[in-house]
Amino acid sequence: VTGLTRATVSTLVDELLAGGLLAEVEPARRAGAGRPAVGLRLADDGPAGLGLEVNVDYLAAVVVDLAGRERHRFDRHADQRGRRPGAVLDELAELAGLARAAGAADGLRVAGAAVAVPGLVADGVVRLAPQLGWRDVDVRPHLAALGPDLGGGLRVDNEANLAALGELHARLDAGAEPARCGFLYVSGEIGVGAGIVLSGQLHRGARGFGGELGHVTVRPDGPRCSCGARGCLEVYANQEALLRGAGLPAGDDAVGRLVAAARAGRRSARTALAEGGAALGVAAADVVNLLDVDTVVLGGVYAPLARWLAGPIERELAEHVLTAAWAPVSVEASLLGASATVLGAAGSVVRAVRDAPAVWLARSAA
Amino acid sequence: VTGLTRATVSTLVDELLAGGLLAEVEPARRAGAGRPAVGLRLADDGPAGLGLEVNVDYLAAVVVDLAGRERHRFDRHADQRGRRPGAVLDELAELAGLARAAGAADGLRVAGAAVAVPGLVADGVVRLAPQLGWRDVDVRPHLAALGPDLGGGLRVDNEANLAALGELHARLDAGAEPARCGFLYVSGEIGVGAGIVLSGQLHRGARGFGGELGHVTVRPDGPRCSCGARGCLEVYANQEALLRGAGLPAGDDAVGRLVAAARAGRRSARTALAEGGAALGVAAADVVNLLDVDTVVLGGVYAPLARWLAGPIERELAEHVLTAAWAPVSVEASLLGASATVLGAAGSVVRAVRDAPAVWLARSAA
Repeated sequence: VTGLTRATVSTLVDELLAGGLLAEVEPARRAGAGRPAVGLRLADDGPAGLGLEVNVDYLAAVVVDLAGRERHRFDRHADQRGRRPGAVLDELAELAGLARAAGAADGLRVAGAAVAVPGLVADGVVRLAPQLGWRDVDVRPHLAALGPDLGGGLRVDNEANLAALGELHARLDAGAEPARCGFLYVSGEIGVGAGIVLSGQLHRGARGFGGELGHVTVRPDGPRCSCGARGCLEVYANQEALLRGAGLPAGDDAVGRLVAAARAGRRSARTALAEGGAALGVAAADVVNLLDVDTVVLGGVYAPLARWLAGPIERELAEHVLTAAWAPVSVEASLLGASATVLGAAGSVVRAVRDAPAVWLARSAA
Repeated sequence: VTGLTRATVSTLVDELLAGGLLAEVEPARRAGAGRPAVGLRLADDGPAGLGLEVNVDYLAAVVVDLAGRERHRFDRHADQRGRRPGAVLDELAELAGLARAAGAADGLRVAGAAVAVPGLVADGVVRLAPQLGWRDVDVRPHLAALGPDLGGGLRVDNEANLAALGELHARLDAGAEPARCGFLYVSGEIGVGAGIVLSGQLHRGARGFGGELGHVTVRPDGPRCSCGARGCLEVYANQEALLRGAGLPAGDDAVGRLVAAARAGRRSARTALAEGGAALGVAAADVVNLLDVDTVVLGGVYAPLARWLAGPIERELAEHVLTAAWAPVSVEASLLGASATVLGAAGSVVRAVRDAPAVWLARSAA
């Protein structure tokens, strides 16, 4: 397929084996004559990705191996609003240290880290995270304790963008054609964000601040949002609105309790999900009218709730999308489930290693 | 600059002169020694573009020369709703014939035609034009009378897309950098549409049906729109809503009368424009939140009304755009004014000739 000679392939494979990126597997039995071929797989004790997430009601750190499999995960559930950003980031660094040490015990060596935050990010600085109340918070100095040996660096990005990239690669790995792979990834947490993927590319906008679905206007005279405007989607459909509508308190495993209530058929829970889904559908219809995407992916807390949200969303799409009659839009739960963000963050690190293994080899030899 | 030799350039120029694409101008006086250089310009009697437009209350045909200058224009103002599509297109073909004949008298030879329609187009077929009440209308057979010699063919496209492409090229000609040229082009007529340009590229969406700004929801419980949904932008801000709000009848030069009323400070006109502008601003803010474009271009009837619409639009952008405080958005009238659509359509034909002159030369020699 590649047109490379057997000798060239052998040399390349030897380099990747020596560098710890590949491992040999038992040769498959073969019927024909000749030397048996040696099977290869991505090393599961090679370079690893560290994914970190600051969210409004939790912090998380995961280590994934080169194949993108989750190997270790640490999270802490607690409301982060009102805390100093420095204190939040110090605690995140602590979780990161635990995850990294657990990985090291398995022979995994962290090649870099990506930090997901629920806000607008430019050059490592969180310009605005309305729900957290952060403005112009430089994340990297707080995570410097992760060590200077993070050769792949420390990338800070918007949580929905990292999750959408994770979703994109999960879809490509599952056989989607890049040029035809497009979707609106909706990330539901206490903040609501989105990643917009068109023709296999994440669109961040002219200045990198796109995807703010949570601040699309559902009702111009609606209640005040954390961002200062009125009637944003977030006010109607974030995690807190769903819990409040369902008459459930926030706190530990609140979403699990909402799922249980919906499954049990509790009317307040079903109504809250129908109303939240309708607001999501109005905003998603705006995106489909503007960008003609054919798939809406529900991520974050919306992933385990997709069963009850999809119907109301589809009803609003049918009502508001001009092309609804002949260009159908599919509403699906994220392939990566509720942890798409932190897995997407960690995955972005190992994808960079897989895309340019020579860079990793040169760095790890130095 | 090109690295071509003088001889190669001479050969190419001779071909373009012989083919009628270039013309010589008087040599500029020069101070130094040597043969005076020969000045060149695009021929103004060479290949030409025919732009056609079907709109809800008018039909138009324009011939532009190779430089994109409007040379002849024919339009007919009359409400097209309720007429058979065939009758409308026959009348458009008549205008096209007049424009073409007028061009021929100047030595202009039409290289192709583009037809703009206010609706969703796929493969030359108008799938849906809600204001006209058209569904699945195949435009091309009706315009076959334009003659089989239209070598560049007959392209049918959405009106806002053609206008946005015209605007893009006007901005590039004025020196804009392609990679940084992005805007939301808003086309205001009886329908409201948009063309979304990001990094110098028009984004049509996965199936070509994007840009339907007129059907972005402003109020989910608002009045019924021609598309069947409730509370679409079009209901609040199209030409008819502005005229109705201003207490002005539709009909001949209605927009000119609205401009005059606004200029004279008539309160009803100013209020109507403030309310229409606010609805436009809510919808434009959704686009900026989603796509982070830095410019909103007002085209169609919004171009001559930009002076009164821009303020209310900017106020809603400041209220609803999350990044408003540090990533400003400029609201501007279209460089091509109220006729951006039909000029954009005609311009698309001559741009194709200029981009691939050899194709035109081979065809016109055949």
